[in-house]
Amino acid sequence: MVDYSSKIPIEKVKKMTDNSKAYIGGWAEHLVHKGKICFLTVRDSTDKIQITGIKTKLPEELWNNLIGLKNETIVWIEGVIKKNEQAPSGVEVLPEKLTILNPVHGPIPVDITGRTHMDDGTVFTQRELTIRIPKNKLPFEVKSHVAQATREFFLKRGYTELFSPLIVATATEGGATMFPIKYFEQDAFLAQSAQFYKQAAITAHEKVFGLIPSFRMEKSRTRKHVAEFWQIEVEAAFHDHISMMQILEDMLVYVVNTTIKCAKDPLAKLDAKPKKLKAGLPRITFKEAKELCSSFELEDPVDFDKDFTSPEETAMSHHFKAPFFITDWPIHTRGIYYRVNDEDPKISNSFDLMAPGGFAELCTGGQRVHEYDKMVEVIKNQGFSLEGYQWYLNLFKYGMPPHAGYGLGIERLVFWICNLDNIKQAIMFPRTVDILKP
Amino acid sequence: MVDYSSKIPIEKVKKMTDNSKAYIGGWAEHLVHKGKICFLTVRDSTDKIQITGIKTKLPEELWNNLIGLKNETIVWIEGVIKKNEQAPSGVEVLPEKLTILNPVHGPIPVDITGRTHMDDGTVFTQRELTIRIPKNKLPFEVKSHVAQATREFFLKRGYTELFSPLIVATATEGGATMFPIKYFEQDAFLAQSAQFYKQAAITAHEKVFGLIPSFRMEKSRTRKHVAEFWQIEVEAAFHDHISMMQILEDMLVYVVNTTIKCAKDPLAKLDAKPKKLKAGLPRITFKEAKELCSSFELEDPVDFDKDFTSPEETAMSHHFKAPFFITDWPIHTRGIYYRVNDEDPKISNSFDLMAPGGFAELCTGGQRVHEYDKMVEVIKNQGFSLEGYQWYLNLFKYGMPPHAGYGLGIERLVFWICNLDNIKQAIMFPRTVDILKP
Repeated sequence: MVDYSSKIPIEKVKKMTDNSKAYIGGWAEHLVHKGKICFLTVRDSTDKIQITGIKTKLPEELWNNLIGLKNETIVWIEGVIKKNEQAPSGVEVLPEKLTILNPVHGPIPVDITGRTHMDDGTVFTQRELTIRIPKNKLPFEVKSHVAQATREFFLKRGYTELFSPLIVATATEGGATMFPIKYFEQDAFLAQSAQFYKQAAITAHEKVFGLIPSFRMEKSRTRKHVAEFWQIEVEAAFHDHISMMQILEDMLVYVVNTTIKCAKDPLAKLDAKPKKLKAGLPRITFKEAKELCSSFELEDPVDFDKDFTSPEETAMSHHFKAPFFITDWPIHTRGIYYRVNDEDPKISNSFDLMAPGGFAELCTGGQRVHEYDKMVEVIKNQGFSLEGYQWYLNLFKYGMPPHAGYGLGIERLVFWICNLDNIKQAIMFPRTVDILKP
Repeated sequence: MVDYSSKIPIEKVKKMTDNSKAYIGGWAEHLVHKGKICFLTVRDSTDKIQITGIKTKLPEELWNNLIGLKNETIVWIEGVIKKNEQAPSGVEVLPEKLTILNPVHGPIPVDITGRTHMDDGTVFTQRELTIRIPKNKLPFEVKSHVAQATREFFLKRGYTELFSPLIVATATEGGATMFPIKYFEQDAFLAQSAQFYKQAAITAHEKVFGLIPSFRMEKSRTRKHVAEFWQIEVEAAFHDHISMMQILEDMLVYVVNTTIKCAKDPLAKLDAKPKKLKAGLPRITFKEAKELCSSFELEDPVDFDKDFTSPEETAMSHHFKAPFFITDWPIHTRGIYYRVNDEDPKISNSFDLMAPGGFAELCTGGQRVHEYDKMVEVIKNQGFSLEGYQWYLNLFKYGMPPHAGYGLGIERLVFWICNLDNIKQAIMFPRTVDILKP
């Protein structure tokens, strides 16, 4: 019987002194057998190491078991650590005992070593196997740190964590992109965001945050869109767009800098080089941003009356060296739940957070409508029945404080921090119009 | 214009020195007006305080605004703190300025003071309003601490956080209790648990945990069942039921003791008195547990060949003073994904964690089947097509390490720690066969 508790992560084995005893559990990734010598690469979640077998020095059974190993067999190896400059990373293990914990049943259909180029088709249709390839799983290690840094940030500031429902009866931003679901005998939807519920939650807790799944029946096939994602949802009473923008900036600075420190290793292996952020991110108004766009040589003329085109966004994003905010959006370019500015009724109290280097939009947020009359108008203007929104309207009818918030997709953040090609790479099992399995 | 950033939480206002200036933002909960004096209770998310108005000492407009306040109006009050033994909690604020930030539109249909008894019907059908009642929101404050303590526990031990998909094509434990969903042009389900995906994830990370939503089309109306809940999902490679049971014990001890410390205030207000836990929780075998049941005076005779009846569970739970484990379950009493014991083929490598005081089951876990042949058998025995489970079976075919894990509903844990009446009280917007709104 193997005592799993004696297992030493390969990462640690490689740092142990010469002649120490190693207990390794992992995947027999690759075997090279040349005459009387064989080299077995064993992988665990932390690293890889070379097991060197020399026929003349091993009991016959051990040698035979070693050279008979099929890729991805689960092995338990006890052996002695030896420094060897010719071995990858300068260390090898001379095996003394080999136990097969679980055999494979045929050759694995994908190359786990990461040496073969793999197209997205293979990566995502065989995701249950391709997540083992170290470079594919590194974004999830980064994500784990991003998630925890985010929570630390808000909990330190007295926010309460929100767990909002995902099966909902009411559409938030129109039902067109919501997945319908049969809920017992009723019609329901999968939540598009926690918007309504985080607004409800601030009437109890004032300040809430959560990492909450969102679902959008998103048919477009872009680098940035998936049908299922987790949002950093934030909402706080007695805040406006200005103070909320500051919270978002503080959060971003904290999360990025903490991740750079804590996820140093996976970021280095991904060859991602996120820059440390400093407080005081640039803020430009919508008008200034349009003027900036006019200074670029873009194909189409800049329209100061419309939202930014994709080429405008990209050009601006290349112009800046750090994340930046766009403020003072004309109301007709923004979502309907944002509050109109008290001093300038043409301006919406909202902001966009943009990432530099061509990445463009990271997050949208702002101050929300809090007056009952205005919210009734918003719902009516959407063409929705007031009856369906009764519970939501009750919030505004019976004591809703002024409030602000934002929603930031954690996968989008990881996509940017890790400098990935595609948002799907930041999701272990992504869901798109094309992918439902695995 | 009110400067929200000057807001002082009421909890802090009450601790400030006499004659300090207070800036309070919150809900005008209740007004008592007797002749030339009025007492206004203002509430924010942290506490309540009395604003005392004396007609002869106030400008006429301020007095009139004060006595005209309707319950739950959002107010901003600037005033001076005075010790007063006759005021609730010995402190009152003498107002100097009152700003109405958001008026109400009619009397709020529920009593927010918490003085009126409210049945579950009202509590949950008007949940958007009843979450404001301090005792109703306290469980969420506790939950926020429970969630974070859980994550701290696993992250410190090198676990990677898992975000698994909620829209799935494959049923885990039979499709009968799964919510069907139309996913673009395909048929899909809402995930019943992260079971398959956390097993996949350990082939990349070895040790994973996550707080992940689960959905069950649960028609029974009990104190413990809801249709949507969040589970603490844990899975680790190179572990068996014995070492996993230890992890669960360590986690429970850490989470309960940390919550007692960090959520001291909400726990005290809830009058919940969870006991600090000590390592070394009792462990009894299934057989010993049945023998114990035989010693109780129960209506029905104890059947050693069947799972525990509800009265048996309750009686055992009352017998113990701390959480305890039941081990060595006969295979026919357990789920099919558990591994059969190598030494005794009649025993399943699984455990139940039970809470004391009549609460009964908290969590189930154990070592999983990891052999391909055995998993094929398991799928076939369920009457499922192997084709539908192809991606899952690939895990076992191409290198699945021995592994173990468990799933523990965080709401159930909060239900127990807070000593609530019903699991719904641990969920801000619960979903049951009867409740889809708000």
